[in-house]
Amino acid sequence: MHRLVFCTFLFGFSWTLPLAAQDRHAQQIRSFFESVMKDGQAYDHLRTLCKQYGPRISGSEIADKAVLYAVDLLKNTGADSVYLQPSRVPRWIRGKAEEAYMNSRKKQIPMHIAALGSSIATPKGGIQAPVVEINRLSQLDSIGNGLTGKIAFFNVPMDPLFVRTFHAYGQVGSVRRNAASLSVRYGAVATIVRSLASNTDEYPHTGNMVYADSLPKIPAVAISTRDADKLSEQLKSDPALSFFMNTHCHMADSVLSYNVVAEWRGREKPNEYITVGGHLDSWDLGEGAHDDGAGCMQSIEVLRVFKQLGYRPKQTVRIVLFMNEENGLRGAAAYLDSARSQHEIHRFALESDAGGFSPRGFAFKCQTSAQFDQIRVWRSYFEPYDMSLFTPDGGGADISGLFTLGAVLADLRPDSQRYFDVHHAASDVFETVNKRELLLGAFAMASLVYLVSELGL
Amino acid sequence: MHRLVFCTFLFGFSWTLPLAAQDRHAQQIRSFFESVMKDGQAYDHLRTLCKQYGPRISGSEIADKAVLYAVDLLKNTGADSVYLQPSRVPRWIRGKAEEAYMNSRKKQIPMHIAALGSSIATPKGGIQAPVVEINRLSQLDSIGNGLTGKIAFFNVPMDPLFVRTFHAYGQVGSVRRNAASLSVRYGAVATIVRSLASNTDEYPHTGNMVYADSLPKIPAVAISTRDADKLSEQLKSDPALSFFMNTHCHMADSVLSYNVVAEWRGREKPNEYITVGGHLDSWDLGEGAHDDGAGCMQSIEVLRVFKQLGYRPKQTVRIVLFMNEENGLRGAAAYLDSARSQHEIHRFALESDAGGFSPRGFAFKCQTSAQFDQIRVWRSYFEPYDMSLFTPDGGGADISGLFTLGAVLADLRPDSQRYFDVHHAASDVFETVNKRELLLGAFAMASLVYLVSELGL
Repeated sequence: MHRLVFCTFLFGFSWTLPLAAQDRHAQQIRSFFESVMKDGQAYDHLRTLCKQYGPRISGSEIADKAVLYAVDLLKNTGADSVYLQPSRVPRWIRGKAEEAYMNSRKKQIPMHIAALGSSIATPKGGIQAPVVEINRLSQLDSIGNGLTGKIAFFNVPMDPLFVRTFHAYGQVGSVRRNAASLSVRYGAVATIVRSLASNTDEYPHTGNMVYADSLPKIPAVAISTRDADKLSEQLKSDPALSFFMNTHCHMADSVLSYNVVAEWRGREKPNEYITVGGHLDSWDLGEGAHDDGAGCMQSIEVLRVFKQLGYRPKQTVRIVLFMNEENGLRGAAAYLDSARSQHEIHRFALESDAGGFSPRGFAFKCQTSAQFDQIRVWRSYFEPYDMSLFTPDGGGADISGLFTLGAVLADLRPDSQRYFDVHHAASDVFETVNKRELLLGAFAMASLVYLVSELGL
Repeated sequence: MHRLVFCTFLFGFSWTLPLAAQDRHAQQIRSFFESVMKDGQAYDHLRTLCKQYGPRISGSEIADKAVLYAVDLLKNTGADSVYLQPSRVPRWIRGKAEEAYMNSRKKQIPMHIAALGSSIATPKGGIQAPVVEINRLSQLDSIGNGLTGKIAFFNVPMDPLFVRTFHAYGQVGSVRRNAASLSVRYGAVATIVRSLASNTDEYPHTGNMVYADSLPKIPAVAISTRDADKLSEQLKSDPALSFFMNTHCHMADSVLSYNVVAEWRGREKPNEYITVGGHLDSWDLGEGAHDDGAGCMQSIEVLRVFKQLGYRPKQTVRIVLFMNEENGLRGAAAYLDSARSQHEIHRFALESDAGGFSPRGFAFKCQTSAQFDQIRVWRSYFEPYDMSLFTPDGGGADISGLFTLGAVLADLRPDSQRYFDVHHAASDVFETVNKRELLLGAFAMASLVYLVSELGL
């Protein structure tokens, strides 16, 4: 404790604001709080997005309709301008629901699976083969050709010993992405990946996977954590069991889609930009409520509260609802390309893509350590709202490229304990979002944009 | 910011531990973390309590059975001794489910209500009367005899502008408790109280109410927040509407019940006590999952992890599952009476009764300010786990009396945003509890007990 305090003490003072200014900023932030908590629309908009639209995988009809809904919302919120920013996006289609069971001792035991995004389908009629369980990637070499003609079952759980669940996800994310390529080189005919979920239930959690260009493609599916446990258990007593899966997904031709961009012109430096956003696309299971309808509606709420209170930042604020974060990041690339080709000046970018849960603070990626020292001082503004956890490990998939243009990046950090219960699964529905938690996040975002704009970085 | 830092700087150093000791304590705390997150049983036990037992209102058959279940759990956990501590408890019985509707323009619109704890029933066949809405207690005097023969509808929402929802609850709690007495003096025949909930849904939230000795008793019910809004809206266009309610509750004779107490004998000062607990009783709606099955199972988990790791604090740790927190606090009184009559030395008491949500830290009630200065230094042990919010506004209903015996009090402070969505309602079920959040709370409790015991106060 004393060491941390000491550092803050040494570096804190040079950045301290005069008290009068502190009070003025604290008052403005309080007015954001009151407006968002009393009049905030993010929750109602999210209900509409989830219930009247639904899952919005890139290139789908619902994604197209959600783009139009977002345009309407942003126009009604009073943006100075709203426009679409085109990009071609991959269009992966799940097709009919998957079927799967394990065949053990003449019993068929149904299993909950979902094809991973970008996967090919099984051969028509499905595929059935014995299963080899892999608990660590380091086992692969020793198993080797033991995989030939088999289904490789990657049963690697998220490590419960990471306090922040995103760290556990980061550790095993590559298993999902690369399972097919890792196992096909030893002759596997398909691969099953334990869902990247921190709880135990029946939902398979999808997510993107990639094929290595040089290798054959095999079908890849996620299995629910509960069924992964069951399958593993059954394999212990019946190593000869076989697994049947039938999937119907395919990659269609890429199609044109859009980021939705709204501008709120800066009062002093309209040609400098602050980007605030989330991604409008989602996986095709569930409703994309936490991932990332929440971040989209929080971003729109930032504009709403600025408009309601008549607050115009020095720089132009762009609310950007990115397309195709989940399986290609084509929207992020289009935004970055445009910014670069227009020689735009980007000061700051803020993303909300970690769920609509109770906000704990922000993570930052600064260009200089002095910037983070300055930002840390602003924690005092967030302490009255119990959201002053500021960490230096920020980024954000859709905004990360803006760092190369000189922008400081930040991402909202909600409490992460529940996120991977619903992430990429049919359970990511509106009902799991709490109104106060969602609005508190939007308030935090508005306040941070305010401070960045007024105090500079 | 700088002011806060400065105070910590001034006072922090005198309490700072040598680095070697810091590391040893941090290691022990880490071992608690690993044990709880990998082997913790609190979630499974809570499932059993909620699903195989269920709601446990004082004096009920299920409460009796839950007492025996808790005894078994504590014995199996390896306590040195487990015993029951008797006390007589009130026994309020809801009876058949309530019926209610509003009669407006010849339409009957069903309403969700629940009798408040301790309320009398309506006359047989129910009661029907016009409704007078009250939005602030200060309106009562001016409405005055306008309440005669009417139903007083206290429509006072929880204020969304409190960051911590318990503060909003504290502000309006007296409305629920006193609505009947406040309105009967002006001739009201019954009272409806807007549920003390921070969301909008169809669940009525019960909770205790009290009658003034000198005044007649009238039936008191809670109405769901959604129906409170509907009723209020309808009253605007049809002030003459009437409300029908039929309730079947009554207060039966008090009965004998029990606290469940387990002891884990101290290695140095076995005659000094640290109390760790929650309350085993719940309201009769829902499953008492967050309130307070969570706190009970977290308390048992503290013992489990101490036992598993072979850790024995200096003082004797008592795990106490209190009876009758919800409508009488008779268990707390019995525990205090016993402690006092035995001249026990109580050093510290820790309660978990704010839900099984993601822990943010603790609130303390210290005997001296020096104690809180000391405790604040321990935050550094909790920072790696994102739960270092320590505040001086602690207490805890079941342990508060121990303060008079010289104990320092603490209560676990989970994130409060979702708590009043389910509090005292049929929605307080196991499914709303997240395993990681519950276990993190248990880990926090074990760590705090360890620090108090090893470092003293």
